[in-house]
Amino acid sequence: MTVELGDRSYPIVIGRDLLDGHFDLSEFVRGSDCLVVSNETVAPLYYERLRANLPGCDVRSINLPDGESFKTVATMLSILDRLVESRANRDVAVVALGGGVVGDIAGFAAACYMRGVDFIQVPTTLLAQVDSSVGGKTGVNHAQGKNLIGAFYQPRVVLIDTNTLDTLPDRELAAGLAEVIKYGAICDAEFFAWLETNMAQLLARDADALGYAIHRCCALKAEVVAEDEREAGRRAILNFGHTFGHAIEHCQGYGEWLHGEAVAAGMLMAARLSGLAEKDIHRLERLVAAAGLPTRPPAIAPDDWRKAMGMDKKVQGKALRFVLLRAIGDSRVSAEYDDRRLNEILRG
Amino acid sequence: MTVELGDRSYPIVIGRDLLDGHFDLSEFVRGSDCLVVSNETVAPLYYERLRANLPGCDVRSINLPDGESFKTVATMLSILDRLVESRANRDVAVVALGGGVVGDIAGFAAACYMRGVDFIQVPTTLLAQVDSSVGGKTGVNHAQGKNLIGAFYQPRVVLIDTNTLDTLPDRELAAGLAEVIKYGAICDAEFFAWLETNMAQLLARDADALGYAIHRCCALKAEVVAEDEREAGRRAILNFGHTFGHAIEHCQGYGEWLHGEAVAAGMLMAARLSGLAEKDIHRLERLVAAAGLPTRPPAIAPDDWRKAMGMDKKVQGKALRFVLLRAIGDSRVSAEYDDRRLNEILRG
Repeated sequence: MTVELGDRSYPIVIGRDLLDGHFDLSEFVRGSDCLVVSNETVAPLYYERLRANLPGCDVRSINLPDGESFKTVATMLSILDRLVESRANRDVAVVALGGGVVGDIAGFAAACYMRGVDFIQVPTTLLAQVDSSVGGKTGVNHAQGKNLIGAFYQPRVVLIDTNTLDTLPDRELAAGLAEVIKYGAICDAEFFAWLETNMAQLLARDADALGYAIHRCCALKAEVVAEDEREAGRRAILNFGHTFGHAIEHCQGYGEWLHGEAVAAGMLMAARLSGLAEKDIHRLERLVAAAGLPTRPPAIAPDDWRKAMGMDKKVQGKALRFVLLRAIGDSRVSAEYDDRRLNEILRG
Repeated sequence: MTVELGDRSYPIVIGRDLLDGHFDLSEFVRGSDCLVVSNETVAPLYYERLRANLPGCDVRSINLPDGESFKTVATMLSILDRLVESRANRDVAVVALGGGVVGDIAGFAAACYMRGVDFIQVPTTLLAQVDSSVGGKTGVNHAQGKNLIGAFYQPRVVLIDTNTLDTLPDRELAAGLAEVIKYGAICDAEFFAWLETNMAQLLARDADALGYAIHRCCALKAEVVAEDEREAGRRAILNFGHTFGHAIEHCQGYGEWLHGEAVAAGMLMAARLSGLAEKDIHRLERLVAAAGLPTRPPAIAPDDWRKAMGMDKKVQGKALRFVLLRAIGDSRVSAEYDDRRLNEILRG
């Protein structure tokens, strides 16, 4: 599968048993230097196995602390320091091995080091495999808001070994399913129906079901990103549930709820704001609940909601914009919503 | 004059009396919010005058401390904090008002805020007008090397009011002339000869002479950048004298010598390394001296030279590369040079 972006196009390679050297990444490394960026949790499981996919390379590594609360400029700078310390040149490749947090920080570091060096994504969580590793959004959080500092910076290749999901904690698997459900809700009613039928298999980590879902999500994302790389328009639909979700993460303090959990509750808030038919809201609610995800946000004061959402990147001319659903599988970005209904939803 | 970069093309507007509202910048502002980034020295002179060029805009400002030693991540983050504090959205425009340091930091902040917002350059030094404001190189220094952290990020427009040179200190005017001489040396023998004839007028701040030089340099830079935006090849010739120059700045501690002064001495070192004909080395030496610029580097130990140059962004596969001259007006990037001669040059 390829993300079509002209001279920045890149392949997404999905399969079982790709680590341990069964897919050669060295052809994507211009020089011989690589820096593998991982974290304390993932590195012990997969770092040595990934080294086998980088034959002939001079591989160094750095492990970040694990968790969204460390997705900061300071952590990003620690990667740059490591690159400088190893006297890495412009031909170095930065390889992200881990979940969405590792990928976002490592990608931003790759974008900034010497004004941009090659970047390779090896996502090991479901969330990163279906969403954050594809499309080139990189960045870190600011004390006042999520992902406020970053770059659009595409990887040279995304390598998804679905076996890595075997070691993923249940809670993180569910969090990844929030983004999977998102794709169905915003642009693929057929896939949404498939998820309703197959949620039990996904939770049981059935390899075929997970493989199918990952393929489908990557294909949908690649199509949307190819059409609108820098989110001038349609790409914003991928943020369904995220305006509310980011506000939850921000108000809770990063790391309390997982990103996918916040997005799950956020999708239901957005569906209600959309004025979606009750039966469709219930379908979404049942599917989110079936995945073991929260259908309601935590208690947050309406003023805190408003303040946190004011930093959303979709705000235009001071007006909040939301991704709203016309129906399951049909979405749009809009500033036209019922503000009284929004207040009701925020009051919970 | 236009920098041709497809959908990222932008105009360079050069003239006298453009401030005080005589050129409307508001058409380059998508929303109404602007943040003018300047410094303690330039803002008192030109900030109010620039506001007149932004009619109808909601203009905020931040003044950075003045000098290369403040070209750091910390200073860049202070701009991001100011943007967040003013709750700026993706439609904000960041306007750099000042010299190369202000432009480089502000441009990098614009590149990073919400993964990229609009950026406008209003350079007020000769160096920024002829070189750093055009072409999209932005960034800050790392403790271990110059411009190691940054982005290629093009402005939407460059506005050059040549009147601003009236307030430029002599030393900074001379530093800008180093980059002017560079263009002649690397790609325009005719312009080099013109500079030999007209250096006195330039130093006397003759408006016509300065205007002509600025036009010529911007045209040369626009052509090179259009051909090779991200410095995959030919653009590197613009770094003539800079491998040595950056090492001088780094070893001296940023702010001791001005960038242009370090580049001036660096160009003569590079010319000597090139094995250029003695008569041409002397022409370059005379022109550099006529501009009031240093023709010799400060005392630096050879090991310190080597270490500092090892962080140069042109290094490939561990090999230093230099911009070398075949003749005045004819340059190439090469790793083929006489290493013994390099040692002699470093020993001074």
